[in-house]
Amino acid sequence: MPRQVTAFSNTTVKRLRSLRDKKARRSEGLFLAEGLRILTEARDSGRLPEIIAFSAEGAKHPLAAEIIAVTETAGGEAIETSAEILSKMSGKDNPQMLLGAYRQPETALERIDRAKAPLWIVAQALRDPGNIGTILRTGDAVGAGGLILIDDCADPYSVEAVRASMGAVFTQEIAAARWPDFLRWLRSGDGQLVGTSLKATGDYLDAEYGQPCFLLIGNEQQGLPEDYEAECDLLVKIPMAGRADSLNAAIAAAVMAFAVKASWRSGNSG
Amino acid sequence: MPRQVTAFSNTTVKRLRSLRDKKARRSEGLFLAEGLRILTEARDSGRLPEIIAFSAEGAKHPLAAEIIAVTETAGGEAIETSAEILSKMSGKDNPQMLLGAYRQPETALERIDRAKAPLWIVAQALRDPGNIGTILRTGDAVGAGGLILIDDCADPYSVEAVRASMGAVFTQEIAAARWPDFLRWLRSGDGQLVGTSLKATGDYLDAEYGQPCFLLIGNEQQGLPEDYEAECDLLVKIPMAGRADSLNAAIAAAVMAFAVKASWRSGNSG
Repeated sequence: MPRQVTAFSNTTVKRLRSLRDKKARRSEGLFLAEGLRILTEARDSGRLPEIIAFSAEGAKHPLAAEIIAVTETAGGEAIETSAEILSKMSGKDNPQMLLGAYRQPETALERIDRAKAPLWIVAQALRDPGNIGTILRTGDAVGAGGLILIDDCADPYSVEAVRASMGAVFTQEIAAARWPDFLRWLRSGDGQLVGTSLKATGDYLDAEYGQPCFLLIGNEQQGLPEDYEAECDLLVKIPMAGRADSLNAAIAAAVMAFAVKASWRSGNSG
Repeated sequence: MPRQVTAFSNTTVKRLRSLRDKKARRSEGLFLAEGLRILTEARDSGRLPEIIAFSAEGAKHPLAAEIIAVTETAGGEAIETSAEILSKMSGKDNPQMLLGAYRQPETALERIDRAKAPLWIVAQALRDPGNIGTILRTGDAVGAGGLILIDDCADPYSVEAVRASMGAVFTQEIAAARWPDFLRWLRSGDGQLVGTSLKATGDYLDAEYGQPCFLLIGNEQQGLPEDYEAECDLLVKIPMAGRADSLNAAIAAAVMAFAVKASWRSGNSG
């Protein structure tokens, strides 16, 4: 049976609350996901929280009740608490009525089976957690295998990233690596590394994309470093019609990912 | 000559600070833009701030000095202030060293000349100012004419939206209208209204897009209301490969906008 918890000073409440902080996420190895939709996505992907917190109102939904029950059966901790405490945990004025703390998977590159998907997204030094989450969501939509984070990226397990991923944090593989280690891993098997660059001459719509295709997306401010571009097997250009010379990083990832998929469909595959 | 202002209680400081609030933006008819890049974009689009604030450090850049000078020549107010006060104005810990308050243009639909561009983006009840700004930025990149905001959308002149637009708030037309008024205006001239829907049978890559094309993007949570979908001249589907059944609204807008452009290039135009 779930425990009733009404004190902010309760250990579990404090522990869940601490997970908004990166250091605590790292030391605990846990992260927060909120809302029935995302927790259902997790369950459907075979993932249950180690701790689940909810309001009496939140537990009324049959799907929520089921997730709470299986979490307890699996040995997880369940606490029923107030909307006010849920609000403190999530940092939102209008919190979701259900939230869970999940174990962070290992992010070693060696865990990735590149043959599992024709497309992988590789993000370099992305600083905005919303962009990371949105790229995960887009990756899920295009059938990518996952997201490989290069150099210092925002935490994919931050509350903002998990929220923006709309559950894709549970369905996409997530790996992290320094650039030299990524290159070594990449070259140890099949794979075309594709970058976008304003200096490229080939239009992104005319290119031949191989499989597996690794789409490399650069930092929000600086784009890709030159020596990273130089390692790409293919550099393409997304033509810009207006005054701007760049796209938002998550937008660039999506435009490229959908174009790669479209090229395969039209039989333009490498 | 710019005035030196060091007091938080200064009237101009308080006025600029108030512009982070929607009510104040509305009553003043002004909005804030920050940073040399965005202010330069504005100047290149023929727009100068009515008030400009900067740190001594910020004024050192020749482009910044020029914008400050022409702002004063044009009768605008210029104040030199501290990083601390700039931080209060922008609500950021690391503020830009330059910010301006600009006059909000009229947003009446009747001002829009649809013949000016082959593509327009129409957003319905978008609640996230970051999405609005990102769509403006994407619109600029694809050569759209502007963004038409339907029903209750987030404020395109909020600090978050202006930031995400990366200056496109100055290059894209922005209009706002209720749905019936938009429909009346739309039907008074040429234009194909295109919506995306999971119920549509036609793939977005196979469709014939007319000009001008009005891309209709629905609310982040609910998508498009059914009766709005029913008004579309063309409903297309973006196939989803993963578990997710939707894309982020700004991502959907970009994927559609780039696909429409690509279809015109390949001669698939309606």
